[in-house]
Amino acid sequence: MDIVAGIDLGGTDTKFGLVSRKGEMLAYHSIPTDPNIGYQPFFELLGREIEQLMLSVGDGYRLAGVSVGAPSGNQKNGTIDSASNLKWPEKLPIANILKSIFGLPVTVSNDANAAAVGEMYYGLGKGVKDLICITLGTGLGSGIISDGRLIIGSKGHAGELGHVIAVEDGRQCTCGRRGCLETYVSATGMVRSVLETESEKLQHSLLGSLNKNSLTSKKITSAAMEGDKLALDVFDATAKILGKTLANSVALLNPELIVLTGGLAKAGKYLLDPTIHYTNHYLLEVHKGSVEIKTSEMNNKKTAILGTAAFMWLKLEDISQTTF
Amino acid sequence: MDIVAGIDLGGTDTKFGLVSRKGEMLAYHSIPTDPNIGYQPFFELLGREIEQLMLSVGDGYRLAGVSVGAPSGNQKNGTIDSASNLKWPEKLPIANILKSIFGLPVTVSNDANAAAVGEMYYGLGKGVKDLICITLGTGLGSGIISDGRLIIGSKGHAGELGHVIAVEDGRQCTCGRRGCLETYVSATGMVRSVLETESEKLQHSLLGSLNKNSLTSKKITSAAMEGDKLALDVFDATAKILGKTLANSVALLNPELIVLTGGLAKAGKYLLDPTIHYTNHYLLEVHKGSVEIKTSEMNNKKTAILGTAAFMWLKLEDISQTTF
Repeated sequence: MDIVAGIDLGGTDTKFGLVSRKGEMLAYHSIPTDPNIGYQPFFELLGREIEQLMLSVGDGYRLAGVSVGAPSGNQKNGTIDSASNLKWPEKLPIANILKSIFGLPVTVSNDANAAAVGEMYYGLGKGVKDLICITLGTGLGSGIISDGRLIIGSKGHAGELGHVIAVEDGRQCTCGRRGCLETYVSATGMVRSVLETESEKLQHSLLGSLNKNSLTSKKITSAAMEGDKLALDVFDATAKILGKTLANSVALLNPELIVLTGGLAKAGKYLLDPTIHYTNHYLLEVHKGSVEIKTSEMNNKKTAILGTAAFMWLKLEDISQTTF
Repeated sequence: MDIVAGIDLGGTDTKFGLVSRKGEMLAYHSIPTDPNIGYQPFFELLGREIEQLMLSVGDGYRLAGVSVGAPSGNQKNGTIDSASNLKWPEKLPIANILKSIFGLPVTVSNDANAAAVGEMYYGLGKGVKDLICITLGTGLGSGIISDGRLIIGSKGHAGELGHVIAVEDGRQCTCGRRGCLETYVSATGMVRSVLETESEKLQHSLLGSLNKNSLTSKKITSAAMEGDKLALDVFDATAKILGKTLANSVALLNPELIVLTGGLAKAGKYLLDPTIHYTNHYLLEVHKGSVEIKTSEMNNKKTAILGTAAFMWLKLEDISQTTF
């Protein structure tokens, strides 16, 4: 049976697993991501580790491809762009490196695109051909699937929903501009919203004892669970901005499903319910009732590996997706 | 040689032509769109007219498909939705009607999608696989092409850029909501902008002698050509809103090219130059320099037929595009 190796390349650890077409993870391992030994020896080590893993699953399996996911993975060029914290070269030609090691098809993806393809293969998007997956963490990423194909864009930089300008002259963003969606809709954005609300309103809140550095989206969720009005207001304001941007994305793309995933999606109904409300509020009439919004059911540490592996299956089943 | 029949079904006239893969229009004719005779006799008449046209081009040509474009054409379902001014049924199953008449493959498109595919086959988009085409007329439509494929959406309602909410609590739109892009960026939107500016500022203008009913985008363009400040300001304000929305679309889709077409695009540099300026201003760093914005060079009365015909070529070359 064909299986693929999915690699989740992180700044601290590199996790990898062997994944079947149906999404079974047959074997799993991780090694520290050590930037000091140079990228070539590192990936050769990774190659040997994956060979070991293949031996562990026994006969009857054939490695059909190797897929790597990284925050700045560029699926169009087969590179990892500006992985600065790894002290590796800008635009590391990861696809070529892995191809020379394995002699197999290789795909490269970023985390949001891998999450989207993962949802289509193994998650809520099974059988769905038009979906958007939103990853809500420190920032906001997105992967867009149209008619069963990932939208990559001419340079591999599609899906930057986090940098849609959602508020004119809004908050300062790490990208250098103002008002980007992720300055409001992300874990960091919600902390900023708490501070902003505290600055504007005289309101008792469980969050009043926390400062900028100790505030987290998890603590805001806990406060919301206890009925804290400020926390609930912040979820509502976050959902309003997200809902409007989602409605605008639906106008362009007419998806059937929007999946929210990532750390902040664990806030569950506190984020989901108002997001559904505001998205419907802002939707064009012709799109009303045609799109579902759900939180991912794949929220565990191995999801990134599954998503990356799914990306390989997409390539194996539709070779036109990647150009390298 | 294979050729296709492109039909531009309008409320007053139905224009049709025989088009080669290279975009040569070998023959052309038009008949009045007569809603009083019922749709079945009308399309049978159209069928006989197209047969006549085939005879006129002589031997050596084979009709490979029939493609119809209409403002509310739904390429997913093969229907014309709510062509109310034609007194025909809602959701007219035009694909099935034409298939039974011709016994050939049929495609259905709306005008904005046909324009996008037309640009890819015969216009500025030759060789480009990721592009957005914006049709600027009474309203604003768009067709999105990603990796050489038209984005249709789960229900055939993708590409509604005109109904992206560009201004929070903005102008009233025909769709029942507020602040849609086309309430600012369209011929009608620009007339509203002139009236709004006149209401706010004390400013001499060539447009001062015109009222709501006599103002047109053509007259605003003429005034701009004579250096009229109010007209130039309105172009600038229009371009600013368009530029921001285009930059947001680029964040999602990372196209290589954006083509402006339709009546308002004839304003040329008065709209194009500030639109390029503002789009670049709002673009995310990673997208800067990667997208060109141009006005269509296909702006004549037969463009709609060419675009519709191109849509048929897209189907003939990639059968997975349409489901009916």
